Amino acid sequence: MKKQKLTELSELGEFKVIENLTKGFSTVNKSTIKGVGDDAAVIDSADKQTVITTDLLVEGIHFDLTYSSLKYIGYKSVVVNISDVYAMNAIPKQITVSIAVSNRFSFEALNEIYAGINQACKAYGVDLVGGDTSSSKIGFFISVTAIGEVDKGKAVYRNTAQTNDLICVSGDLGAAYMGLQLLEREKLVFESVPGVQPDFSNYKYILQRQMRPDARKDVIELLAEKNLMPTSMIDISDGLSSEILHVCNSSQKGCEIHENKLPIHEQTKQMSDELGIEPTIAAMNGGEDYELLFTIPLSDYEKIKEFKQISIIGNITDKKGKMDLITENGVRVPITAQGWNTLENKK
Amino acid sequence: MKKQKLTELSELGEFKVIENLTKGFSTVNKSTIKGVGDDAAVIDSADKQTVITTDLLVEGIHFDLTYSSLKYIGYKSVVVNISDVYAMNAIPKQITVSIAVSNRFSFEALNEIYAGINQACKAYGVDLVGGDTSSSKIGFFISVTAIGEVDKGKAVYRNTAQTNDLICVSGDLGAAYMGLQLLEREKLVFESVPGVQPDFSNYKYILQRQMRPDARKDVIELLAEKNLMPTSMIDISDGLSSEILHVCNSSQKGCEIHENKLPIHEQTKQMSDELGIEPTIAAMNGGEDYELLFTIPLSDYEKIKEFKQISIIGNITDKKGKMDLITENGVRVPITAQGWNTLENKK
Repeated sequence: MKKQKLTELSELGEFKVIENLTKGFSTVNKSTIKGVGDDAAVIDSADKQTVITTDLLVEGIHFDLTYSSLKYIGYKSVVVNISDVYAMNAIPKQITVSIAVSNRFSFEALNEIYAGINQACKAYGVDLVGGDTSSSKIGFFISVTAIGEVDKGKAVYRNTAQTNDLICVSGDLGAAYMGLQLLEREKLVFESVPGVQPDFSNYKYILQRQMRPDARKDVIELLAEKNLMPTSMIDISDGLSSEILHVCNSSQKGCEIHENKLPIHEQTKQMSDELGIEPTIAAMNGGEDYELLFTIPLSDYEKIKEFKQISIIGNITDKKGKMDLITENGVRVPITAQGWNTLENKK
Repeated sequence: MKKQKLTELSELGEFKVIENLTKGFSTVNKSTIKGVGDDAAVIDSADKQTVITTDLLVEGIHFDLTYSSLKYIGYKSVVVNISDVYAMNAIPKQITVSIAVSNRFSFEALNEIYAGINQACKAYGVDLVGGDTSSSKIGFFISVTAIGEVDKGKAVYRNTAQTNDLICVSGDLGAAYMGLQLLEREKLVFESVPGVQPDFSNYKYILQRQMRPDARKDVIELLAEKNLMPTSMIDISDGLSSEILHVCNSSQKGCEIHENKLPIHEQTKQMSDELGIEPTIAAMNGGEDYELLFTIPLSDYEKIKEFKQISIIGNITDKKGKMDLITENGVRVPITAQGWNTLENKK
């Protein structure tokens, strides 16, 4: 097979690289007055509030090029950011992207990353409005900042949960983590027996949750449509345990989470079984679910229980600092944070 | 001398690290509704436009820890960003900061970086409103996004220069570049003869311009105060040549720059002399000046010539694509871009 000639980044130079990478992006938001191509982007705003968030993805820490594609990494880097915007009850409108790559990356490789970024931009209706491209001595870093808007007074914070509120979570938990475990296992197999092609056909869902997660745009739209205003909200990036502790601690409340209410996908359970991991551990501490965790007043119970994409998993209590998981056999277990740790990454 | 016990980042964990690093930051802008501590920051806006820009600084590419302090790097990472906001004729209000460090960095080291960031926040009246901290396998990366505001219709772009406009530049050019050359030379000396202490006393200005540059807040304020509205503007990060080409190409104009009008500091000339580099080369192609390059209508000549911090260095012509430097002996030399190049960094 003839190998395609790849373009070295230095052949093109920075400005040409940026011009090429961004030319497939169009802007869709009226608020985007000036996008890529000046010192800064210009964003219009009327009676709205601007929401802004940023995340950094690092090769070897947040992704592994052995089993993730560059396109997926581009897509995911956008999703993890706009998930934070949705978690404020806001609508993402613009992103900026900064990338540092070593010279082992070709222009075509960068282009793949941007194809993934563009796919996410289109899926969520956000405009790429700026960025920076740099070389690195080693390793690949991608930093995304997302800007969103929300009507005045409609932003939902994490520190405003109220006693007796219902604790709700969208989708299911633990799948991205089990997808990662599967990939890690197959990587080890591949390293010891090169050439073996892993069979992933039974595990498409958990792999997709790990490699190409989506943000819950639909849930934010549903809540707005049904006039449901969460009292507090956060997205699940570090695992349910870590996030519910954030909500309770910052709201100065306690909580009870019921193990038997945790939404767990069939494939997550299967994989847990294969690897001898408790599905509850995956759901509580796995992370990277990018689901929304939110609290709503008890009086909204009738409304919320109708939605199949939302599970009620517990309730907020006035017992500050007492955050418990109630197991299937009725035992109370204190919830502890098992989230990301700066230098002791769980991956 | 007793060595201070340093705190490993893993001892503290991500959340404690962030809490500690950000606790010395206070917010000063009324528009900062919600800062650090939720999924995203919330920024208020009335009849203004929001300006947003981002820059990535990479160890070994944009800075060298052999001769720059962590505090200066923190300071500079903010300045290079808000310089872009000023270049839009906007006022920076908020920043987010993402940092990736390897485990050779202690908490105290990160704290130094944040001390520099805080210093810049205070100097320019901007609020730190979010960020991300991650580990890296190797190397140190810092990505800053700055958000600013500008009255509707007052943003100044780079593609709107008009024929016969005067080309103006603030401060002086080439000093940061010569500061870098000096540091590189002394590093080589130090590597061959360890223990030799370099004498930098005659070169404080050019070193400061390299290690701890400032953005031209004062110039933007002055222009507003004097009711001077540039027709186009850009900040000088990649060197005057590169920036004037951006302005002319995007405005579809040409220009004439007069070599004898280029503002060059005495120390820049001295250092150029010592190292056998043409001061004009340093001024045109050096970069990292973070001065403002802007154009104003000829009719504002009387107003602009009064300001000692602004030099008129040439004029815009209708000769699209013809960008010339007119040397001291009257020779026309076409200006070519010598700015940053993604993977062939001039450093």
